Amino acid sequence: MAKPLPVSPMAATLPNLPPLAGVRLGAAAAGIRYKGRTDLVMAELAPGTTVAGVFTRSLCPGAPVDWCRLALKQGQARGVVVNAGNANVFTGRRGRETVEATAAAAGALLGCPAEQVFLASTGVIGEVLPHERITTALPALHAALNDNAWERAARGIMTTDTFPKASTRTAEIGGVPVRITGIAKGSGMIAPDMATMLCFVFTDAAIPAAALQTLLQGRVEETFNRTTVDSDTSTSDTVLLFATGQAANPAGASLDAFGAALHEVLLDLALQVICDGEGAQKLIRINVTGAESDGSAKRIGMAVANSPLVKTAVAGEDANWGRIVMAVGKAGEPADRDRLSVGVGGTWMARNGTVVEGYDEAPVVAHMKGRSVEIAIDIGLGKGVATVWTCDLTHGYIDINGSYRS
Amino acid sequence: MAKPLPVSPMAATLPNLPPLAGVRLGAAAAGIRYKGRTDLVMAELAPGTTVAGVFTRSLCPGAPVDWCRLALKQGQARGVVVNAGNANVFTGRRGRETVEATAAAAGALLGCPAEQVFLASTGVIGEVLPHERITTALPALHAALNDNAWERAARGIMTTDTFPKASTRTAEIGGVPVRITGIAKGSGMIAPDMATMLCFVFTDAAIPAAALQTLLQGRVEETFNRTTVDSDTSTSDTVLLFATGQAANPAGASLDAFGAALHEVLLDLALQVICDGEGAQKLIRINVTGAESDGSAKRIGMAVANSPLVKTAVAGEDANWGRIVMAVGKAGEPADRDRLSVGVGGTWMARNGTVVEGYDEAPVVAHMKGRSVEIAIDIGLGKGVATVWTCDLTHGYIDINGSYRS
Repeated sequence: MAKPLPVSPMAATLPNLPPLAGVRLGAAAAGIRYKGRTDLVMAELAPGTTVAGVFTRSLCPGAPVDWCRLALKQGQARGVVVNAGNANVFTGRRGRETVEATAAAAGALLGCPAEQVFLASTGVIGEVLPHERITTALPALHAALNDNAWERAARGIMTTDTFPKASTRTAEIGGVPVRITGIAKGSGMIAPDMATMLCFVFTDAAIPAAALQTLLQGRVEETFNRTTVDSDTSTSDTVLLFATGQAANPAGASLDAFGAALHEVLLDLALQVICDGEGAQKLIRINVTGAESDGSAKRIGMAVANSPLVKTAVAGEDANWGRIVMAVGKAGEPADRDRLSVGVGGTWMARNGTVVEGYDEAPVVAHMKGRSVEIAIDIGLGKGVATVWTCDLTHGYIDINGSYRS
Repeated sequence: MAKPLPVSPMAATLPNLPPLAGVRLGAAAAGIRYKGRTDLVMAELAPGTTVAGVFTRSLCPGAPVDWCRLALKQGQARGVVVNAGNANVFTGRRGRETVEATAAAAGALLGCPAEQVFLASTGVIGEVLPHERITTALPALHAALNDNAWERAARGIMTTDTFPKASTRTAEIGGVPVRITGIAKGSGMIAPDMATMLCFVFTDAAIPAAALQTLLQGRVEETFNRTTVDSDTSTSDTVLLFATGQAANPAGASLDAFGAALHEVLLDLALQVICDGEGAQKLIRINVTGAESDGSAKRIGMAVANSPLVKTAVAGEDANWGRIVMAVGKAGEPADRDRLSVGVGGTWMARNGTVVEGYDEAPVVAHMKGRSVEIAIDIGLGKGVATVWTCDLTHGYIDINGSYRS
């Protein structure tokens, strides 16, 4: 709340987002917390739309996450309602009443059962979200839904985000062209005050719910689950994928190209979230090779990505490979100090457990000054590989998170 | 290097540290990295001194840690040599040569085998530590050892520490009074540039090495292993306990009072390290109750203590219990959102999964402005309890760790 944050220096430009058959969108100013901006987003989905979802692993999730997990079981979706400003988390019985009333009101407008309406909330934790604010605004919002409101939707779900996030790709299924378009918000991995990661992806492809769920889980594991801003996990993180079926692609055709395009959309959105990380000035990509397994490589990469000392070193444009060695050592994964190699921006600074005497510092120094920093770690034990992404840790993070709620 | 850091507002005053029978200490300026200050500390221990040690869990430890782990097997100690300014970590073969040459030189002066000399190094990682700097300085340092140099020793092991850390207690074993005196350094849980936690504890009690090891491990688990500054783990963390036997207490007598006094010394030193945490302005104590087990309570407490969002909230004097709920949720331990309670400074703000309507904010606001912040978390599931400690996350941390090495 307070003064608006400066736009991230790594902000992406919103791509051209054409209509997607079977999806109508809109946003309204419901006055949930913010003044003078949209904070309520609705989507109407064509009958027959299938749905898949991946949610926070938090053991203290918000009421909308509980709702979606249950609703997902029936596999069909006709609508989505998302609000910004209040996360409806840690709100007990009244939180459940709000999700039930919201879904029922949207279902009545859309002509579907409440459990075909998917919900997400993001914003302050622990404050009751009065459903009247939402249910009062829904009829006019529903009446104004249209097929050309992607930007309005992307903006309406923002909280501490400094730019709207969207991505679109095309693919073919059995020779039929399909499109995938997603929007996302998030600027810390979490900040119950204001952040949380939400992502809504829509496609006109026809894909059964079970296959859609498998695709989504696999692609989220490759993308969102390999990014971190600050190691904290939201109570509300939600990724939903809706397939309207309007492209009428043949059933049973290969979904490989679709899966690859979905990976691209999710990675694009995940990296936009990292680039809007609270206080972020640099995007950090960490490539781990030579681990005992891919899983081990991922865990090593995430230990480095979550290390405050590595992230502050990058903020200071210091190619401090000693801190990288430290973070590898604390990951708890198989590693042999005397086989470990660390490089930055394509230059190996340490090889097989000791510094590379006389390595050329000039390209390393130049690389560290850029917006995008590449760290290479070779464990030297096996064939496990992983790439993970994070951002640097700066005074901006302390400014955003260390100020009073107001 | 750069400019000296301001002394922590939570700095402890050095206690009166009387001589301890069987221990002679000294410090010298060996010019390893710093100018105009002592950076090499030596202790001579009476013949028959037993030793116990606990070390970093890092899989990439420094050469001195490898050395101590091996030396510990024979259970006897006649000397300790500690340097500040260079950690001798990630230095390969030359790192091993340095520890061997240092231990041999000290052993020759002390008249003992090299493996009865214990070593620790702290400072920059990945730079060769030339043993000549140390071995050249040792003879004069050894000649000047005396029984009244505790403060010199406590200062000589400092790196980014802003105050020297020491603690002393007395106890009785079988009716015989004994003393325990320890010194420590550390100001991040780690910062391979400059920090790392080292702790050396000495007692005149006579305790066999095996019993000493059991005592030390148990007490470190209750103290140092329940504190965190920034979740990063040093490659060099070392706690050593030496028992000179000069008090001639009877063998086989209860060690309970000794263990309790050892706990106090270790906790005092651990909290001094937290109070000197990089950029720390507040000490945070987290009491977890009602977890499924004590181990689960500790893991929940550490997840809260390591959360950047909780730590920045405390820095901002914001009793943001929503972030505490988030951190409990990400711990991966059994928890039920609707039984969870969170309090600050003795006031419960959330009870059984929802905010306490109309709780008195005044004492909470006042408490948050103090130097010492108490967080209470009741999981509501079982009888597991744990207390852990951390410090807040401030601009000072970014200043210290985000600047160029220089």
